[in-house]
Amino acid sequence: MNYDVIVIGGGPPGENAADRAHRGGLSVALVEHELLGGECSYWACIPSKALLRPVQLYDQARTMPGVREAVTGPLDAGAVLKRRDWFASVDPSKPYGHDDAGQQSWLAGAGVEFVRGHGQLAGPKTVQVTASNGETSTLTANHAVVLATGTLATVPPVPGLREAHPWTSREVTNAEKAPRRLIVLGGGVVGCEMAQAMRGLGAEQVTIVERASRLLSNTEPAASELLRTSSEEAGIMVLTGREATEVRRPAAEVTLVLDDGREIVGDELLVATGRTPASDALGLETVGLEPGKYVTVDDSMHVLGGWLYACGDITGRNLLTHMGKYQARVAGDVIAARANGKPDDGPGLRVLADDAWVPQVVFTDPQVCSVGLTAAQAAERGLRTRVVEYDVAAVAGAKLLVEGYRGHATMVVDEDRLVVVGVTFVGPELAELLHSATVAVVGEVPLDRLWHAVPSFPTASEVWLRLLEAYGM
Amino acid sequence: MNYDVIVIGGGPPGENAADRAHRGGLSVALVEHELLGGECSYWACIPSKALLRPVQLYDQARTMPGVREAVTGPLDAGAVLKRRDWFASVDPSKPYGHDDAGQQSWLAGAGVEFVRGHGQLAGPKTVQVTASNGETSTLTANHAVVLATGTLATVPPVPGLREAHPWTSREVTNAEKAPRRLIVLGGGVVGCEMAQAMRGLGAEQVTIVERASRLLSNTEPAASELLRTSSEEAGIMVLTGREATEVRRPAAEVTLVLDDGREIVGDELLVATGRTPASDALGLETVGLEPGKYVTVDDSMHVLGGWLYACGDITGRNLLTHMGKYQARVAGDVIAARANGKPDDGPGLRVLADDAWVPQVVFTDPQVCSVGLTAAQAAERGLRTRVVEYDVAAVAGAKLLVEGYRGHATMVVDEDRLVVVGVTFVGPELAELLHSATVAVVGEVPLDRLWHAVPSFPTASEVWLRLLEAYGM
Repeated sequence: MNYDVIVIGGGPPGENAADRAHRGGLSVALVEHELLGGECSYWACIPSKALLRPVQLYDQARTMPGVREAVTGPLDAGAVLKRRDWFASVDPSKPYGHDDAGQQSWLAGAGVEFVRGHGQLAGPKTVQVTASNGETSTLTANHAVVLATGTLATVPPVPGLREAHPWTSREVTNAEKAPRRLIVLGGGVVGCEMAQAMRGLGAEQVTIVERASRLLSNTEPAASELLRTSSEEAGIMVLTGREATEVRRPAAEVTLVLDDGREIVGDELLVATGRTPASDALGLETVGLEPGKYVTVDDSMHVLGGWLYACGDITGRNLLTHMGKYQARVAGDVIAARANGKPDDGPGLRVLADDAWVPQVVFTDPQVCSVGLTAAQAAERGLRTRVVEYDVAAVAGAKLLVEGYRGHATMVVDEDRLVVVGVTFVGPELAELLHSATVAVVGEVPLDRLWHAVPSFPTASEVWLRLLEAYGM
Repeated sequence: MNYDVIVIGGGPPGENAADRAHRGGLSVALVEHELLGGECSYWACIPSKALLRPVQLYDQARTMPGVREAVTGPLDAGAVLKRRDWFASVDPSKPYGHDDAGQQSWLAGAGVEFVRGHGQLAGPKTVQVTASNGETSTLTANHAVVLATGTLATVPPVPGLREAHPWTSREVTNAEKAPRRLIVLGGGVVGCEMAQAMRGLGAEQVTIVERASRLLSNTEPAASELLRTSSEEAGIMVLTGREATEVRRPAAEVTLVLDDGREIVGDELLVATGRTPASDALGLETVGLEPGKYVTVDDSMHVLGGWLYACGDITGRNLLTHMGKYQARVAGDVIAARANGKPDDGPGLRVLADDAWVPQVVFTDPQVCSVGLTAAQAAERGLRTRVVEYDVAAVAGAKLLVEGYRGHATMVVDEDRLVVVGVTFVGPELAELLHSATVAVVGEVPLDRLWHAVPSFPTASEVWLRLLEAYGM
């Protein structure tokens, strides 16, 4: 079987690369051994946000005057989980517990051939597919093979950890109920989000253990502080600067031993300490690459030989669905341009936003929304910056939104170019505000012009005015 | 009494002009006969949003699976009104029913002298102030007088209307309870917002009568349609293309007669048909201007003579608090620059965003968030445009936010300059997303660059990606 392009991995990046290449006039096959739609649709972004939104809406409802009087019962965790099931297409009767029929029909509509099976490279432009019954077939590509197999949860080498069958992001986002006592190893995005989700859904005891000195250790310090306060107020125990040294699970209970000798007992243990590239069984060795490693790409997502490309988490660059899809659009378009003998260096044909222009929303309470460089990152790069901060709760539009609003905003200005190079908004209901910062940073809109982008009153967006005033405008 | 600058009118524009002029090193007096903080703080933006947010949060709570099971009672209108009272500093023991002490201390902290009384021009650089006890005093200005007296609700010349003592935006935003039956004359921003607020707070029967063929007749048609549907589903009767011909109020009840002979009976009648400049008792005739009219300004907010300026609603330009404050910053800065003999033509010293760059959020359900030109306005200006539309409800991030999401997005692209010149987002929880469009439009970020401003997944902001894809990127 021969195609112009073969994509291995059917998560959002694989789907998007396939779609864009096909739109460029190429025949495309997409190989996926699990579910079309990938980690994001079934075991990550979608189910996690489906769990978090009702928890946060409930909290807002039971604190807002007028509404709180109407809220007499607890959050119905079962109903939340059922809604999660709907969003994540949970179907226990299907392989891998989810139904990817919706994604299959989208892919078919996009004109891409779906090949179910485990794909791996078998030399240049060649992909061997092993079906679930063990049968193998070989596909060849006229133009390109795209690797988009993503990552798996890392299980760090803590004695006893693997044997304790810990939860990963997959199990926690698909939990059938909140465990009574949950231990969360790792205070990054997954750990913080799922600690709050499980606590909101009824876990009596949730403990986060983080090796660094603060939660979300790569964000602005103010974000970590507000998140910690909010998590602790929600009844989550946060232990930072602590490492796990041993895990014991002789029976149902699990015990995590810390480097200070402390022992934490739980019913489930969530490992959320990072990701590992899903590249160990990808045949990388047949083309001279090292299995089990991230695959290095250039800014056109090209790996080697003029035919091998990669996009999404497997590249190790910004492990975020939206960045993976962005890379995929570049990959698909570049492959099509090159196959069609068209210019391959147009403005949409290079990843520009993969370094200092990456947005991210952590959907905790408070939401932590950032784009570009933190103050620390800008300093590391040697930029001459000025950092301006403002209390989002001092903005009328924020106060009106959520009772007892707490938040914080940080703006990092490059003083040589007089543009904003980083923004972090912390607070409830700020996720949609982030894109204003993304446009400002990526658009490199001069401060002098940004001053004329007037935020509507009374919205939380008015924090922009306050930041610019605080800057001295 | 002599000051460098005298500002007449203590709403947000007056306060901001005074503050900025004072920061520029000038002595400033601000004259206000009513309340410092103006219409916005006590009778408009703030109380209206304080009423609307709980109504919308309640609706979201009682439809979201998991939360709806916990909501067993009705919205507690009394508690909402009490929260509104807090936000609007309601204090029946004070003149005008509100306490402006907070604003007074802010103004004092800003170093501006507050003069309580009715200010009016008495010739060049001269302001006569009449106190509530009738005493008059005269202030003189070394450099400038700024008019910032705003607008009043228009009461159109419908026979019997004025005699029926209708509510205006002031009475409805400060209502002590929702009337049982409310008639709303005017389907613009105030009418649509307050119809929903009063309905949500318990009005059994709410009817909007609008002369134009649709609600919010200056917005994109899709916005009007979605707003109408949502209002009607909330139990509001919407009559468009109808004019009022007579009002009768022989007793407590009020009857509105329409041009088709139909009669609508209510307990209160809200007039929301526009604004009239508060300039009839401003002494405009002493400087050769016509009382009762809007005051024409140039882009530095200068009116005449090198000493008379104006900002805010009184200018008739974009009657929005945030635009008034924006004009005020320009006015204050320009006055200070000129008084100090500094250049008066820097980038912050002209109103640039007063024409095609104006953002506005209508805080209805759905929110109607727009900036720049609608497709129709762009066409009127002879721009060669392409208009792209997308269903916000097809974006995962929107669907996750609110159960049963409905929305719409419209993007107007200037095909000659390849920049976005107008955006309208319609849907719940999009108010904060608007500023991304404001930055894109005002920043004139090229489409090719905007493509690299990647929206975070899963947020409603992803509608940007979909709009750009639909455009053909």
